[in-house]
Amino acid sequence: MRAFRIVVAAHGDLADAFVSAASLICGPLRELHAVGLRADDSPETFGERLREACGDDDPLLILTDLVGGTPHNVAFALARRRPSAVVISGVNLAVLIEAATSIDVLDDATTTHLVSLGREALADMVTVVASRSS
Amino acid sequence: MRAFRIVVAAHGDLADAFVSAASLICGPLRELHAVGLRADDSPETFGERLREACGDDDPLLILTDLVGGTPHNVAFALARRRPSAVVISGVNLAVLIEAATSIDVLDDATTTHLVSLGREALADMVTVVASRSS
Repeated sequence: MRAFRIVVAAHGDLADAFVSAASLICGPLRELHAVGLRADDSPETFGERLREACGDDDPLLILTDLVGGTPHNVAFALARRRPSAVVISGVNLAVLIEAATSIDVLDDATTTHLVSLGREALADMVTVVASRSS
Repeated sequence: MRAFRIVVAAHGDLADAFVSAASLICGPLRELHAVGLRADDSPETFGERLREACGDDDPLLILTDLVGGTPHNVAFALARRRPSAVVISGVNLAVLIEAATSIDVLDDATTTHLVSLGREALADMVTVVASRSS
């Protein structure tokens, strides 16, 4: 059973939508939280909700949408104060589902695995389409 | 100016949320459409909305959330009948924003660029955090 909390931090409704899409595919998922940056948020107000969602227990996995965006920047600052927290940016659905359903322990090896799996899932099909059309 | 349409195809509200998150960051974006798979959709009903969103003009870029999921499978089948259509799976926000704002022409080189950029944007910060904490 997964021994860590997952928090998705993203712009607008994207964090909620990631969580609901994963739940639509996998069924209810425990210890999975979403924090969305609202148009009227400041980094401080967003940070308050993010800290609440992250809780106090380690380890913690934060998945952010975009390096340089407020959700990522605030999550990164939070993680610097929690040495066992892991932040993965550029989240896609494959990373979220793998983390939520197939990883029990969050360590360097599983972090590397998640990044690798997410990158492999991000691929273009143009070559495949061309080869099947020829 | 971008000379192709972008359609995001994903589970639940994820497609809409990707588009709204990109618009929150970049402002209004033209020729950017979202098609979400609803809980009561069949591949056929989803496919009807996807075809409508894709229109008839080439080239076309479809960004899907997950290989093996219905949105991707239906998009892939559609793209096989449109040789100039490009399908990129495992979409993250970096890919969408780059495609919507920084690519004018959709060809093999820009497709490769989009995949590469999206993969680089998907990264873990644990090493960075550890190095800054030490």
